[in-house]
Amino acid sequence: MAVQAQTVAEICAQAKRAARKLATIDAHTRDAALNAVADDLEARTDEILEANALDVEDGRAAGLDDALIDRLTLTQERVHEVAEAVREIVALPDPVGELIESKTLRSGLDLEKVRVPLGVVAIVYEARPNVTVDAAALAIKSGNAVVLRGSSSAQHSNAVLAQIVADTLTAGGLPEGAVSLVAGGDRGELAQLATQDGLVDLIIPRGGGGLKTTLKEHATVPVIYAAAGNCHVYVDAAADPQMAQEIAYNAKVQRPGVCNAAETLLVHAEVAPAVLPELFERLHAAGVELLVDARARALAGPQGEGLSDATDEDWDTEYLGLKMAVRVVDGLDEAIDHINRHGTGHSEAIVTGDDVAADRFCGEVDAACVYVNASTRFTDGGEFGMGAEMGNSTQKLHARGPIGLRELTTYKYVAHGDGQVRE
Amino acid sequence: MAVQAQTVAEICAQAKRAARKLATIDAHTRDAALNAVADDLEARTDEILEANALDVEDGRAAGLDDALIDRLTLTQERVHEVAEAVREIVALPDPVGELIESKTLRSGLDLEKVRVPLGVVAIVYEARPNVTVDAAALAIKSGNAVVLRGSSSAQHSNAVLAQIVADTLTAGGLPEGAVSLVAGGDRGELAQLATQDGLVDLIIPRGGGGLKTTLKEHATVPVIYAAAGNCHVYVDAAADPQMAQEIAYNAKVQRPGVCNAAETLLVHAEVAPAVLPELFERLHAAGVELLVDARARALAGPQGEGLSDATDEDWDTEYLGLKMAVRVVDGLDEAIDHINRHGTGHSEAIVTGDDVAADRFCGEVDAACVYVNASTRFTDGGEFGMGAEMGNSTQKLHARGPIGLRELTTYKYVAHGDGQVRE
Repeated sequence: MAVQAQTVAEICAQAKRAARKLATIDAHTRDAALNAVADDLEARTDEILEANALDVEDGRAAGLDDALIDRLTLTQERVHEVAEAVREIVALPDPVGELIESKTLRSGLDLEKVRVPLGVVAIVYEARPNVTVDAAALAIKSGNAVVLRGSSSAQHSNAVLAQIVADTLTAGGLPEGAVSLVAGGDRGELAQLATQDGLVDLIIPRGGGGLKTTLKEHATVPVIYAAAGNCHVYVDAAADPQMAQEIAYNAKVQRPGVCNAAETLLVHAEVAPAVLPELFERLHAAGVELLVDARARALAGPQGEGLSDATDEDWDTEYLGLKMAVRVVDGLDEAIDHINRHGTGHSEAIVTGDDVAADRFCGEVDAACVYVNASTRFTDGGEFGMGAEMGNSTQKLHARGPIGLRELTTYKYVAHGDGQVRE
Repeated sequence: MAVQAQTVAEICAQAKRAARKLATIDAHTRDAALNAVADDLEARTDEILEANALDVEDGRAAGLDDALIDRLTLTQERVHEVAEAVREIVALPDPVGELIESKTLRSGLDLEKVRVPLGVVAIVYEARPNVTVDAAALAIKSGNAVVLRGSSSAQHSNAVLAQIVADTLTAGGLPEGAVSLVAGGDRGELAQLATQDGLVDLIIPRGGGGLKTTLKEHATVPVIYAAAGNCHVYVDAAADPQMAQEIAYNAKVQRPGVCNAAETLLVHAEVAPAVLPELFERLHAAGVELLVDARARALAGPQGEGLSDATDEDWDTEYLGLKMAVRVVDGLDEAIDHINRHGTGHSEAIVTGDDVAADRFCGEVDAACVYVNASTRFTDGGEFGMGAEMGNSTQKLHARGPIGLRELTTYKYVAHGDGQVRE
């Protein structure tokens, strides 16, 4: 891995060659090499922490806020967790070679539909150094080569982590170029990466709207957009008010900075008086800024005066923080319409004791994940029993919801005959 | 369906509204409406043939060649076949609502992965009026709304066919806008169609490189590229020479204008003398122009002098006609390298009696469909037992190979809980 000396095109060409070889390497070899990566990460913790300290120092000098510094910072314990995550990925079932379907055709051909790696997967991610290792492990476990494009603010950490991963995998018999790193920070290099037709089989951008816009504009290779989640909790007329409060509170507060956190609360007018006053108090106590429509304000009691008005823009905003928009609706149809109009198709929840309303919500809301009487926060590869995830897809093609190992594969039809020709 | 009065954006918005309603309409209603379409097409054959005669007249005036005129022309028998194709699509298993997976998560949530329609599918196609009906039937059977963008050279036929389909479906209880037609011929309208983010869930271009280039440049909605097939037959050292001849001949000659026809023949040097001379005679007799490398020419005998030299460009060319490039190779590796370098990932065949060679070919050739001892011509939804197809995908995401009903769907996670929140 000689990042500095190679262009993006060269890195991708080498990854493609590696991918062809990887497709012929058995699962045992891939697993053993990944386990060695976990061991080497732990063995070389000092080296990693030294590099990470430089990034943290640069981050503080650049004025990054505490939350970002925290995401950037590695410790001995965190390096151990990163290594453990690799071991957990190794322990997942191997998706490669799975026989999806087989049949004998009328022509007598024996047709098998077999799961195979995509080839070269590129991932563009934010300043979390652990993603460097997670993404590499997920890609290799699913038989793919990977091109990593991390954030410039984690450049020292990423360089060391990617070097350890690449060296250890090569020592374990995997091809040179199976894992490579493109230096972050340069949008030009991102555009290059996104236009390597025939070399990059999939690019997954994790991160904000700017990244998405850049890729929409430039990408000619296949893209799965991960991350944007304007998620809703709808409290139906037939909801248990206490359950509704718990779910809405959890969906907003438990971890507000993630894509499956709720941004807007919709409450049926009939149940709003039993839900909103107490819920507003709890959210307020947790530091949540509320942006409400007039009917919600009216129910807020004396607290109402301190609340902001929700604007049209609020319905479309993913706050990724301690803010929540609140709207009172007159029924299920209005709730579904609101969600289909303003949602991003990520995770949507209804709280209700009415099975008919629940079925209509699940059927008519157009999203990757729909929940009945549960928090939106469960949309996660780990929670879904898929192991780690590369992100969450809000698009409909190929992968919807958590992007795990299987979502990093494609399939191939393999037909065996004894001389069949078409008549 | 008032094509003239609506902009592309309006048509797509109406299709989206229709798609939301379609998602809630049961299979029986959709099937009954499609059967009525088949009946109405037959009942209104005269009207269809009248419109088609205008297109054929325009086509002749514009100097279209006989093959294109033939593809454009409808007859009473062909209208009957189009109606029968609709009935066959109706008879296929309904993909919508299929339970792909279900499990209880550690949180206690009951999680189901359910197959659902994509929403709005747009298809851009060539001057074959039957595609108007096929595409509409496939889309509706899989629960989608469809926006059709046919060729201007079939405009009168398409207008009548789409009108019959749309009217009959609406009369059968399906929403207005479930099927609509965008007039063809204008690349500006194509670009509009390809940028209806949030309205068009998938666009499938069928057709040549120009269309593909236009979409690569403009499309911001998801695209599955259908059609380009630079397919190969590789005759291995361990091939039965007679079988090799039959397969190579069939793959080239049986229907040369389609995407799964072979364009290049690769022959192992050891078996070339036993295969090429007689095969060249047969191909020549069938009117196939051969473009050969020096070693293949040397084996062609006296015929050799009349053959053209294959240039580098030939290895990358999809002739879609009676032309075939021929190259002698020294082994399986060279054949696989050639195919992975020049192929389009569509359909690739090896002829061999050697199982190890066959397995390596199937494992290492990066294509949607790989064949052992069979013609490439079998890549087809009908032959694969998938019913009709919307085209063939040479990309790896979402759908690879024939695009049938299932490939026009996505999935959704539906989770039922009893108040679960994330800890």
